[in-house]
Amino acid sequence: MNEELRKVIADTQARYKADPTEAQVTFRSESVLQSGLQSHVSMRDHKLTVDEPEVLGGKDTGPNPVELILGALGSCQEITYRAYATALGIPLDEVSVTLDGDIDLRGFFGVDDSVRPGYGAIRGTVHLTSTAPEADLEMLRGAVNAHCPVLDILTKGVPVDLQLDLRQPVTAAAE
Amino acid sequence: MNEELRKVIADTQARYKADPTEAQVTFRSESVLQSGLQSHVSMRDHKLTVDEPEVLGGKDTGPNPVELILGALGSCQEITYRAYATALGIPLDEVSVTLDGDIDLRGFFGVDDSVRPGYGAIRGTVHLTSTAPEADLEMLRGAVNAHCPVLDILTKGVPVDLQLDLRQPVTAAAE
Repeated sequence: MNEELRKVIADTQARYKADPTEAQVTFRSESVLQSGLQSHVSMRDHKLTVDEPEVLGGKDTGPNPVELILGALGSCQEITYRAYATALGIPLDEVSVTLDGDIDLRGFFGVDDSVRPGYGAIRGTVHLTSTAPEADLEMLRGAVNAHCPVLDILTKGVPVDLQLDLRQPVTAAAE
Repeated sequence: MNEELRKVIADTQARYKADPTEAQVTFRSESVLQSGLQSHVSMRDHKLTVDEPEVLGGKDTGPNPVELILGALGSCQEITYRAYATALGIPLDEVSVTLDGDIDLRGFFGVDDSVRPGYGAIRGTVHLTSTAPEADLEMLRGAVNAHCPVLDILTKGVPVDLQLDLRQPVTAAAE
């Protein structure tokens, strides 16, 4: 398994080094709000239902968007640990992540416009099970935190450009 | 439906105004890497499988972490449009979002350390179906973009503090 992954990583690095244009990729999501606060999200062939807890006005049929942010960070850390441990030849039996995100909901609800609507802070623990010396695992941590895409997105921010497309409802009266 | 949501929003705003400590909440995710690059993520009672496409070394059993970032933003925009349209009394029949995120994978693969590992840019379109005048929908857009938690997180960034917890494997030889 790890031998296979090591080969994918080495081959990909060689390919991107030879032709950087191959490394330029675009991911996409398409989502449609259903009744209430439920959204159906598609990412390639993968589907996901997002909703809010009942106390926030939803029906709790799925995680909410800010919980997904934590799930994206935890899984991205784990994947990056596995990839870099494999590439660096550091044994890694298990990796799991627990994350807490603190939010002041006065921001989202517009109660106080000096309060940001997003997380004020994210805290967490990365659990590693390994026979490697602690110094190797600290080196691994440095490599992971320098290359984890979601950690980079969340700590550094990203320019976001959203256009509005306005449509009139199709009315039966038009017939 | 909208009457019910309007009441939840008004009641919540009144409660948070009366006692800001009630607005301080913490969301959590717990995730565990499985074989390969697959991760099982839990957010309260909600489960999600995250993985990478085969070309990136995974088995494609779920969306990858950076796709989830887009899904979180799209659904958060939609939920915030529904909430603020309801609170402001602006008719909104449908809302859907398409997002593209551009990433240079030389960053994640460590091919060029001057390249960031996360998205360089996120672009997208919010589709609104409504009988409301365009000026009202532009006002709605302003309210949404000022209060959408995930848009705030992605554009402004969040402090992230990750601790390392190291464990030795339990070996059969210990018996």
